[in-house]
Amino acid sequence: MIYLTRRETFNAAHRLFKKEFSDEKNLEIFGKCSNPNWHGHNYELFVTVKGEINQDTGLLINLKQLSEIIRLYITDKIDHKNMNTEVPFMTGKIASTESLAEAIWKELEQPVAACGAVLHCIRLEETENNYVEYYG
Amino acid sequence: MIYLTRRETFNAAHRLFKKEFSDEKNLEIFGKCSNPNWHGHNYELFVTVKGEINQDTGLLINLKQLSEIIRLYITDKIDHKNMNTEVPFMTGKIASTESLAEAIWKELEQPVAACGAVLHCIRLEETENNYVEYYG
Amino acid sequence: MIYLTRRETFNAAHRLFKKEFSDEKNLEIFGKCSNPNWHGHNYELFVTVKGEINQDTGLLINLKQLSEIIRLYITDKIDHKNMNTEVPFMTGKIASTESLAEAIWKELEQPVAACGAVLHCIRLEETENNYVEYYG
Amino acid sequence: MIYLTRRETFNAAHRLFKKEFSDEKNLEIFGKCSNPNWHGHNYELFVTVKGEINQDTGLLINLKQLSEIIRLYITDKIDHKNMNTEVPFMTGKIASTESLAEAIWKELEQPVAACGAVLHCIRLEETENNYVEYYG
Amino acid sequence: MIYLTRRETFNAAHRLFKKEFSDEKNLEIFGKCSNPNWHGHNYELFVTVKGEINQDTGLLINLKQLSEIIRLYITDKIDHKNMNTEVPFMTGKIASTESLAEAIWKELEQPVAACGAVLHCIRLEETENNYVEYYG
Amino acid sequence: MIYLTRRETFNAAHRLFKKEFSDEKNLEIFGKCSNPNWHGHNYELFVTVKGEINQDTGLLINLKQLSEIIRLYITDKIDHKNMNTEVPFMTGKIASTESLAEAIWKELEQPVAACGAVLHCIRLEETENNYVEYYG
Repeated sequence: MIYLTRRETFNAAHRLFKKEFSDEKNLEIFGKCSNPNWHGHNYELFVTVKGEINQDTGLLINLKQLSEIIRLYITDKIDHKNMNTEVPFMTGKIASTESLAEAIWKELEQPVAACGAVLHCIRLEETENNYVEYYG
Repeated sequence: MIYLTRRETFNAAHRLFKKEFSDEKNLEIFGKCSNPNWHGHNYELFVTVKGEINQDTGLLINLKQLSEIIRLYITDKIDHKNMNTEVPFMTGKIASTESLAEAIWKELEQPVAACGAVLHCIRLEETENNYVEYYG
Repeated sequence: MIYLTRRETFNAAHRLFKKEFSDEKNLEIFGKCSNPNWHGHNYELFVTVKGEINQDTGLLINLKQLSEIIRLYITDKIDHKNMNTEVPFMTGKIASTESLAEAIWKELEQPVAACGAVLHCIRLEETENNYVEYYG
Repeated sequence: MIYLTRRETFNAAHRLFKKEFSDEKNLEIFGKCSNPNWHGHNYELFVTVKGEINQDTGLLINLKQLSEIIRLYITDKIDHKNMNTEVPFMTGKIASTESLAEAIWKELEQPVAACGAVLHCIRLEETENNYVEYYG
Repeated sequence: MIYLTRRETFNAAHRLFKKEFSDEKNLEIFGKCSNPNWHGHNYELFVTVKGEINQDTGLLINLKQLSEIIRLYITDKIDHKNMNTEVPFMTGKIASTESLAEAIWKELEQPVAACGAVLHCIRLEETENNYVEYYG
Repeated sequence: MIYLTRRETFNAAHRLFKKEFSDEKNLEIFGKCSNPNWHGHNYELFVTVKGEINQDTGLLINLKQLSEIIRLYITDKIDHKNMNTEVPFMTGKIASTESLAEAIWKELEQPVAACGAVLHCIRLEETENNYVEYYG
């Protein structure tokens, strides 16, 4: 079993809030991240897939293909976008790093499997000081 | 003469556009950065000041004081904010890295001088792939 | 289950030695790290906690609260300090990265649990070339 | 149980290809990485070992000894070399990151055990955008 | 005057040697970098251009255009290539970081000028421990 | 004219204080950095030299030789040491980053000149958030 990780980056605006909450409650729970006028981040996304090394090619899967899957399913849809209002796979969700990592997992699980590998981990870094990991 | 640099970070939403331009022209000039729904970045700000080493203390200026000046004049006003609509020193300006670096210089020149050093350079990194430097 | 990691930094002096060992034995086991006049490092501390995403908020726990716990229990007590002589949770221990990671775990396990998450991993980076991980 | 990781770096030339494949098939499978005139990388190698902390010394194993093992068995043999033609432990293998990580594991497993620790993971970073992990 | 820097990356094989020198002299001058079987690096290229901010757009020049110039003139020609034998602008030159930076300057000076900016600096990082800067 | 930079690292303990000052004044001027029990840092030292490219070799100077000079004159004397009490070139000086950069310049100016290059800049990074540059 070998684990292969591809890093991709994207930039997006977001705010943490829940429309059912009052402004006061949003501020209490989400702090300055609830700013109604948005803020944003440079996200670093690490997608780890696992499987057996193909004895014929010495590779797990084609890295370029993995990169294209991530771009097609994730970064083309979220890069330079507003995560709360424009990203199909985030509709109706709170725009937290936790929710986003979970949503990215759901988008990538099938396409990665179609390449012959198994999705292992989504690591999503929001700033140099915090990141989340999701293993399904 | 010694040069001392302090790094501070902030996150903000922005879009590149000019209200006098048509949507088509904004898109042509600014590309995906003109998205009307905003996007955002983790900015890294490097403020370099210069002067003679104080022979009594071995320091150029108090680094904590420099950090507090940058927070008071810059990061408290822009962190977790929308650069186009909420940041006083960006009012009426295009929210480009170039304009922002120039605006930060204007905000910091006097307070740095009041500490006994001379502002030398504003370096502003928008992503790992691009940054600007402004020397006044 | 989601994993959330917070990075904090601190600087400290230390030396690796055991008072029961002779100077020669300390030097043999710990090399230049046993220098009686101390040396020091910029430590990077990564605290990983785990749990279920709160369906009401989209968060695991409040990140600011996690940061404050780390500062209260760890960095306020060790930053700009001498790890061998001034840090309560290192009293009587060898000031190795291994021991320090283990000690940090013990300090943080309860306060993290009180926030509704489970402490998963302490990663402590002493230099760019070495780090330890402790999982309890 | 504690996990200790040492980072070492090396530079090497390689090409991805299989001599039994036609040039067209090599190009199809390996893309520009199959260039017959070689290309190369700065590799970052992270070797993680695990075990109990020695209660007498507060250490898992001697870090300098671990570094020397990695140099003796790996970097002295591959640094500034051609991975396809000059590195004994890569003879007859496809020079992929996957194969190289697996080969490094085989070289290091015994010497690490002889130091009193257990080899846990080989992480090999080929570029800032991709790396593999192998756990035996 | 504002300075704008774009980072691009490429990987290449090379060896430092001069065909007029004996093998012994090549080894004496260039050390292990003269290995006849090649080695290679991940290069980071920072291209800095300067000029006045365009008051109409708030930009120095279009960053995407700068990136495309660097790809067209430099990285498309050197990425995943052998610097000694396959790169037109390095023909007949010693494949040192110094020579490469100077050659990149010559390739980029005109195209950058055609965009309305002035080439200011080529910074070329060969490893995390060494880089060169060339200002024309 | 080409500029070549070599990075070296070292770890050291220090405190900022002046024996002629009272404890209160030391604390007022140097804050927590004046802790009498020491603290420490991982320093990154960037030494930049300049000169003409040698047309015979394509090099400015031998990089390995530059690295050895830095080790011989600087890092062998300060690595894993107490900067205030054990480092000959810091005797009688306040152990600030500013003073240390200036002292490193004085140590390196002659040996660099003896190699046929001119010392251009000492950049000394104390933490990820602050560094000084000294140009003589």
